Amino acid sequence: MARNKHPEETVNRILDTAFRLFLENGYERTSIQDIVDNLGGLSKGAIYHHFNSKEDILAAVTDRITRESNQMLLDIRDRAGLTGREKLKLIFKVALDRPAQDQLFMVAPDFSRSPQMLYAVLRETIDDAAPHYILPIIEQGIADGSIVTEYPAELAELLMLCANIWMNPLMFGSTVEQSRRKFLLFRQMTQNFGLDILDDGLISRLMDLAQLYEDRQ
Amino acid sequence: MARNKHPEETVNRILDTAFRLFLENGYERTSIQDIVDNLGGLSKGAIYHHFNSKEDILAAVTDRITRESNQMLLDIRDRAGLTGREKLKLIFKVALDRPAQDQLFMVAPDFSRSPQMLYAVLRETIDDAAPHYILPIIEQGIADGSIVTEYPAELAELLMLCANIWMNPLMFGSTVEQSRRKFLLFRQMTQNFGLDILDDGLISRLMDLAQLYEDRQ
Repeated sequence: MARNKHPEETVNRILDTAFRLFLENGYERTSIQDIVDNLGGLSKGAIYHHFNSKEDILAAVTDRITRESNQMLLDIRDRAGLTGREKLKLIFKVALDRPAQDQLFMVAPDFSRSPQMLYAVLRETIDDAAPHYILPIIEQGIADGSIVTEYPAELAELLMLCANIWMNPLMFGSTVEQSRRKFLLFRQMTQNFGLDILDDGLISRLMDLAQLYEDRQ
Repeated sequence: MARNKHPEETVNRILDTAFRLFLENGYERTSIQDIVDNLGGLSKGAIYHHFNSKEDILAAVTDRITRESNQMLLDIRDRAGLTGREKLKLIFKVALDRPAQDQLFMVAPDFSRSPQMLYAVLRETIDDAAPHYILPIIEQGIADGSIVTEYPAELAELLMLCANIWMNPLMFGSTVEQSRRKFLLFRQMTQNFGLDILDDGLISRLMDLAQLYEDRQ
């Protein structure tokens, strides 16, 4: 094989293929050889040049998925002229409005077929998204008086656990109606905490995404 | 080896050993051979006599863990003379007061080392505990006027997701202080929903369990 002058492209091809296979067949049932077979011409050695193990590939796959999302979180977190409460709402709106969400809901099979993928999302949510993006926004909200809570770090975790895992139709294969009821209970819970996260427009957007997922079942 | 006259004892020995190894070394890093090596004299054939695969053993391990817990849930669910709201509180109290909880918190390593174990708890929580035990209690509470919600099934899931996964120190290796703050936010959330689940006594019991876990780290 000709020497690859664009290692980043190779890495991205490997990650595209690995991600698709992990979701379609499950992480455990996907071997490095399966990834090679689906890469059309890339050797096993080329993969091992970039990754030490399948675990390594999984880590890179989830890193890449969350990087784009994290950049968006960062932009809103550090924006001037908004209260903490407004930023929290905006984050949910921007995250859901991205066209990439439609692709994900149309393409991604049920995460429940891959415990490792679900687990990776769970850990990323608790170890990264909640403390580094949501917590600073809640702390700003406490400082500017727009959010009242004694438990900012825990509230950040609880919100993101609901949003990324429990309310995510991809995680438990929820129907549109089940999803709608989860969104409404989540809205009630957040309103009880004095937060204003899901308005009717966002609930309708969430149901469109849940519908994209249901249509493929 | 002499023919085993007590197949149930053999099964329990296999499950004891498998459970310990899954928790200590992770499910993926445990092979059937590792289980054999730790069983002192039992052959691989004896294991395959009872189980088709490692997945099969994992399913039996989690079944056994939840069976005792489910029997307790069942007893309270079907008890006469209590409102739904009272039953919901009692379930948390009885579940936490069992001496088996101390053992679990003293012995079980961090579930986060085994995505499959965490995933099994998550699925059991959403697919079994919430709909079969907590939901009927909430529905009774709605009928007897002690609980008010438009989303009984979703509330059951949210409560159990918090209790079994998020607030469980074994799942995320939380410190006692992190656990305490989760318990207090959970209490606030449930009070906001008009529920009365964690009183000071239960929070203190929860912190004792979190302490047992922290002492071993």
